[in-house]
Amino acid sequence: MNEIVFVTRNEYKVREVEPIASKYGFKIVQTNLPKLEIQSEDLVKIAKTAALTSYASLNKPLFVEDAGLFIEALNGFPGPYSSYVYRTIGCKGILKLLENCNDRNACFKSVVVLIYEPFIVIEEGEVCGYISREPRGTGGFGFDPIFVPHGFSKTFAEMSIEEKNRFSHRGRAVDKAFKRLLSLLKENTSLR
Amino acid sequence: MNEIVFVTRNEYKVREVEPIASKYGFKIVQTNLPKLEIQSEDLVKIAKTAALTSYASLNKPLFVEDAGLFIEALNGFPGPYSSYVYRTIGCKGILKLLENCNDRNACFKSVVVLIYEPFIVIEEGEVCGYISREPRGTGGFGFDPIFVPHGFSKTFAEMSIEEKNRFSHRGRAVDKAFKRLLSLLKENTSLR
Repeated sequence: MNEIVFVTRNEYKVREVEPIASKYGFKIVQTNLPKLEIQSEDLVKIAKTAALTSYASLNKPLFVEDAGLFIEALNGFPGPYSSYVYRTIGCKGILKLLENCNDRNACFKSVVVLIYEPFIVIEEGEVCGYISREPRGTGGFGFDPIFVPHGFSKTFAEMSIEEKNRFSHRGRAVDKAFKRLLSLLKENTSLR
Repeated sequence: MNEIVFVTRNEYKVREVEPIASKYGFKIVQTNLPKLEIQSEDLVKIAKTAALTSYASLNKPLFVEDAGLFIEALNGFPGPYSSYVYRTIGCKGILKLLENCNDRNACFKSVVVLIYEPFIVIEEGEVCGYISREPRGTGGFGFDPIFVPHGFSKTFAEMSIEEKNRFSHRGRAVDKAFKRLLSLLKENTSLR
């Protein structure tokens, strides 16, 4: 199995991503190496900068994943700052901000940037749904307890990893990225 | 023609590289964007870091080229610090260091790192020869006036760009890099 480093300090993300990578023949090695995270409203730009600078110091095949929750009635807040906003005002703060608000539409977006010489693969994934009236479930992390994807009644925190992976923003982006990498590697068999 | 940015402040390098890139269908656009150049004895590491960090800020297809003159009797000095050593002690300093030294073997090495999504191409080029007893010629730049490639009697500074490009370290590395990029692009026609 090909090893690939996942630059993240989020153990939960690793558990989500492992089964997907493994499906395509990649074994994930986590690193706690600090990522350079720039301020930007563009998830792709944030993830690319993190991946490129991590690769400059680590020099091993790696990927980063960056995600955000974009809430329509809050002009996209907390977006790329979701992790910071979660650590400060939390799910409670978001529910407070949406008090008496009937437009609860929101989308989770994820960007994966994968560097595996001679390839750079960038893929995005998105899932839309709504913000629940109260937190539900104990699985997942971050804003999972208040996000219900369209077509479902459960929050992400009420789903198993397998269930969430099937249509989550991260599941989609990671799946596309490894699929693409594998196909690039196969098309360029002369490179192996 | 596909545009590609050359991150360098050295106009002479641009003039050397242009005809090679153009042969493979690429048009060079120079940028004076400062490169992040780390201290290292490894040219590949220096060039990769410069390319990855430049790409993080510029986000356009680009390449960097880093070169050095490695003199055997001086334990590889000035190597990756050739540009700094040239600006300080110059050709004169090198000739002084090699006074009364009969081992005048030296090699020029070049590394090209090219980032053109979804590809990263890294190629090296080398040419060996010897350090002349005195500077000769007005062409080229850096240590060109004191380097004579094996099989020739002229220094690099006595050659035209075309002549130097045919077997210089830079000519070889750049040629290999663009050739490789073109072949990757052709193999992956679905990506265009």
